[in-house]
Amino acid sequence: MHKISFIGAGNVASHLAEALAKAGNSIKEIYSRNILHAHRLASLMPAAVPADQLDFSESEAEIFIVAISDDAIAEVVSNLILPPNVILAHTSGTQPISIIQRNDVQPAVFYPLQTFSPNKKINFQETPFFLEAKTRETLAIIQNLALTLSPKVYEISSHQRQILHLAAVFSCNFSNFLFTISKNILEKQAQVDTPLPFDLLQPLIAETVQKAFEISPEKAQTGPAKRRDKSVITKHLQLLDSLLTEDEKDWKNIYELFSEQIAFFYHPRDQTKTS
Amino acid sequence: MHKISFIGAGNVASHLAEALAKAGNSIKEIYSRNILHAHRLASLMPAAVPADQLDFSESEAEIFIVAISDDAIAEVVSNLILPPNVILAHTSGTQPISIIQRNDVQPAVFYPLQTFSPNKKINFQETPFFLEAKTRETLAIIQNLALTLSPKVYEISSHQRQILHLAAVFSCNFSNFLFTISKNILEKQAQVDTPLPFDLLQPLIAETVQKAFEISPEKAQTGPAKRRDKSVITKHLQLLDSLLTEDEKDWKNIYELFSEQIAFFYHPRDQTKTS
Repeated sequence: MHKISFIGAGNVASHLAEALAKAGNSIKEIYSRNILHAHRLASLMPAAVPADQLDFSESEAEIFIVAISDDAIAEVVSNLILPPNVILAHTSGTQPISIIQRNDVQPAVFYPLQTFSPNKKINFQETPFFLEAKTRETLAIIQNLALTLSPKVYEISSHQRQILHLAAVFSCNFSNFLFTISKNILEKQAQVDTPLPFDLLQPLIAETVQKAFEISPEKAQTGPAKRRDKSVITKHLQLLDSLLTEDEKDWKNIYELFSEQIAFFYHPRDQTKTS
Repeated sequence: MHKISFIGAGNVASHLAEALAKAGNSIKEIYSRNILHAHRLASLMPAAVPADQLDFSESEAEIFIVAISDDAIAEVVSNLILPPNVILAHTSGTQPISIIQRNDVQPAVFYPLQTFSPNKKINFQETPFFLEAKTRETLAIIQNLALTLSPKVYEISSHQRQILHLAAVFSCNFSNFLFTISKNILEKQAQVDTPLPFDLLQPLIAETVQKAFEISPEKAQTGPAKRRDKSVITKHLQLLDSLLTEDEKDWKNIYELFSEQIAFFYHPRDQTKTS
């Protein structure tokens, strides 16, 4: 059982603090610039104290988890008043461990590879944690902490974590935006015709994901761009012209860029690259 | 139990013919320009006869399913020699029913919304079928046929089917290519550092998909572009410059286009569109 304080009360802090408390750890303080946010999160767990000041000199916590936006980490870390020699870990996918520039703490990184939204519970047992520390002792403590949430605990370097986060942005954030585009395209018909609900795509997307991990995404690729089916691509570009609003017209660029890149990936000798 | 012949022996034809045979239907002939392809597929089911000629005047089949590339449908349909008044259905997401320009057949569309790859079994019970026909009688027969494979059977117009297929290209084909990009980015480290296997992204992608259907993709969006976290985006663009080969450098355009489009979608008033 670890004694932990959170700097931050946003999405990542909320999901982590709740899960760590539920796993038997003791959450001591929760800091937010906005005391109401700190209050709201602290109220969800026994004995946690909300704070809007960065003075933790009297804290009993042994681990401080900084879960705030990347831009704010350096400044908040330098302004924190902490008990001596505590572990100070950030949760960023992109910031190196060296952003924690203090000699009076044990720097660490505690990065869960997951997408966190309000009101959507996470299965932490399935979430991999990527850790980094400067000493074996600190690493062992945060490994121990991560293992209270998930069996999938890995040590990787700051550079590897940046690459992992970049790959995750393509796989998760950009895929999700493709789903948003699909849903919007389907809903355009709702006024004039039988509505086509987004749920119709669920089995197709589930199979796409399953196949990518079963036979690899390179081998799983299908569709008009892979087949170089120009009549379908031309038809789709015409449809996009007729369906998209002025604000959405760049989605046609997304269609064209993917079609070009998929064709080039699978048929590199047949293509003259246009960009 | 229906008597069916297939025109085509590729991915779609193979998956459909095998599943329809397994569901108790009788596959009579399988045509391919390449008789070896017809042979290979016909050998997987009882009593099916391979063919490389378009003369089916002696066939016992009542339903002919044309599962070939979009570009070839019109010509093959006009060259087919068929028994009188059979159902002639194509499986294309994009071609209208009117591409079947014959007065001596019952035109139909039999479109499974799915991604088909060799050596990857499909759960047809989860696959939605989208049907179209010109008479109630023909529709009833192909509904009956589709119901031997799946309970998810819908009647939609040619225009709706085109929109559905377009949405599927964004959700399935383009997402899968994002997975390929992610996997390639992770593998770039394998030479110099501990390998980062693509499987690490599986829980994140599973959560992304689950969340999109549980709370909608618009509400589920996360990531640096949504948060307008410019320091992360700048770092990612630098990483892409250092990681991508000459052939892959347009993947940076994909990163930039998505980041711009996500930012514009969620913060339309703060952005000047650049393309």
